[in-house]
Amino acid sequence: MTSFEQYARTFDRYVAQIEYPAAPRALYDPIRYTMAYGGKRLRPLFVLGACGLWRDEVSRALPAAAAVEMFHNFTLIHDDIMDNAPTRRGRESVFRRWGVNAATLSGDSLMIHSWRELARTSPELLPAVVDYFNEAAVKVCEGQQLDMDFESRDRLTVAEHTAMIELKTASLFVGAVSMGAMAGGASDDDLRHLREFALPFGVAFQMQDDLLDSYGDERLGKTVGGDILEGKKTFLKMKALAVASPADRAELSLIHKDLRHTPGKMIARVLNIYDRYGVRAAVEEEIGRRFAAAAAALDALTGSVSSDRIEEFKTFALGQLGRAK
Amino acid sequence: MTSFEQYARTFDRYVAQIEYPAAPRALYDPIRYTMAYGGKRLRPLFVLGACGLWRDEVSRALPAAAAVEMFHNFTLIHDDIMDNAPTRRGRESVFRRWGVNAATLSGDSLMIHSWRELARTSPELLPAVVDYFNEAAVKVCEGQQLDMDFESRDRLTVAEHTAMIELKTASLFVGAVSMGAMAGGASDDDLRHLREFALPFGVAFQMQDDLLDSYGDERLGKTVGGDILEGKKTFLKMKALAVASPADRAELSLIHKDLRHTPGKMIARVLNIYDRYGVRAAVEEEIGRRFAAAAAALDALTGSVSSDRIEEFKTFALGQLGRAK
Repeated sequence: MTSFEQYARTFDRYVAQIEYPAAPRALYDPIRYTMAYGGKRLRPLFVLGACGLWRDEVSRALPAAAAVEMFHNFTLIHDDIMDNAPTRRGRESVFRRWGVNAATLSGDSLMIHSWRELARTSPELLPAVVDYFNEAAVKVCEGQQLDMDFESRDRLTVAEHTAMIELKTASLFVGAVSMGAMAGGASDDDLRHLREFALPFGVAFQMQDDLLDSYGDERLGKTVGGDILEGKKTFLKMKALAVASPADRAELSLIHKDLRHTPGKMIARVLNIYDRYGVRAAVEEEIGRRFAAAAAALDALTGSVSSDRIEEFKTFALGQLGRAK
Repeated sequence: MTSFEQYARTFDRYVAQIEYPAAPRALYDPIRYTMAYGGKRLRPLFVLGACGLWRDEVSRALPAAAAVEMFHNFTLIHDDIMDNAPTRRGRESVFRRWGVNAATLSGDSLMIHSWRELARTSPELLPAVVDYFNEAAVKVCEGQQLDMDFESRDRLTVAEHTAMIELKTASLFVGAVSMGAMAGGASDDDLRHLREFALPFGVAFQMQDDLLDSYGDERLGKTVGGDILEGKKTFLKMKALAVASPADRAELSLIHKDLRHTPGKMIARVLNIYDRYGVRAAVEEEIGRRFAAAAAALDALTGSVSSDRIEEFKTFALGQLGRAK
């Protein structure tokens, strides 16, 4: 069993023992529902993995790991309200099942419980851990706001879109490794290297997610083309808009509202445009560049970390981007 | 100038220097809008006042004071969404002015900033202060959920309603004095006495608020009868429902939906029922009982607090209930 498989077991056991009050049920049932289907639990594994670069025993990082996962799940509950998203992880979204008010309030409550969990961190670590957590939390909200702002913007550059994803998605990875590194006892330099890993990793992770949505991955059982049908501004669409002809730009911007087309036709037409402009390869190249930057940051970790552990960390991160090392 | 007038000045200066980022504006403009019209700033004054029972210099309690006020303001932003409330403090509510999504997200962000502010507490105080803050935050959300649950409940006892208000309203006062007492260096006994003050005070404060809404107070420029027109379950209504005849119960429960009546007529009919059952006096008596319990808890503070400071604290608290000492 690899260290990361062990972290996953340790984390699952830890999260399973977190209890939420029985009542009010309308508040806590949506939280239990959300936390029980945890998805990949990637962010907490980065907390534990970062701590594990320096320590064999990572239990001191468990509260921060749980807190970051709870915070992430809170953002999903509220984002689904704002995006009017009917499903999440293949099930009804919380707001669809319990209504907007219950989803708003249970999201609030899950956020509060994430801080409550974070506060279980040992007192000597707590001030720094709280600061990294709060920094990430502020940025995630700023990113979500920019995401909403950008939906109605006509002209948007790839750089602006990337900066939004850095806030909305990557900053929580940065927070995760920062908290883990603090718990592990990293030096300031090594902390910085891990943060320099997590920022490009987080952006590449979102790019990969965008690619999978349009080009599929049977392993995940994901609907292919969901982003296209929603007209979502993904890295693929941003890349295409940046280079396409005026006619193709117009089609990309409007096709998801064109009721003459079946969903299958809409997806096929958009993928045809992507193909003509080499969008998939361009995004894959961006992922490759970011992964190289992320890997280089890990290689810069100082002698206090064994190269075995760095390799294991890198293998885990690479795996998330669907790439073998 | 009394100590509490000094605390108010100190607090206003402190809050005025808290800066929120300029962008994204859709996220931070609603926060600035909400925080700029602060209302009575009662909760932070209880943080500083509790600290001031033991210390001349209360600046160490300022981050907790600001955090509790920011948290309170976050709850108002989200509550107004859930209650579909068009105004707040005489101005448009945030969700009416900026929309539900911006109000949801700026509320989230203000909550996060409240923890960020709380984290400015000095490290040796931080673990305890965070615990009291989180305990209160959890309870406020549970209270809000019960409040929503109760709106659609047919039978509801005064005791259930009171327990809901303890969570939704009083627990933040309990959190406020607890954090202030920790910052002041209170003993465990004195901390307990202050918490025993804050719980009945908080409930009495809500009862007073309910009374003012139906019977008015020109000083506040409040619309009289707003609760009646909304059909809100207030202490007055709960008291009346507990003793009224079936016909009066039916009228109390349904009149706000009866389109044959003008607003003025609705208010007059409800007040007539209240008068016939002596509801106003009954609620005033409840306030009096709770104030006596709150005052007794303050009198129980040990010799480490000067009686002058206890009196000043009591005078301030009494004043909030519209009563001279």
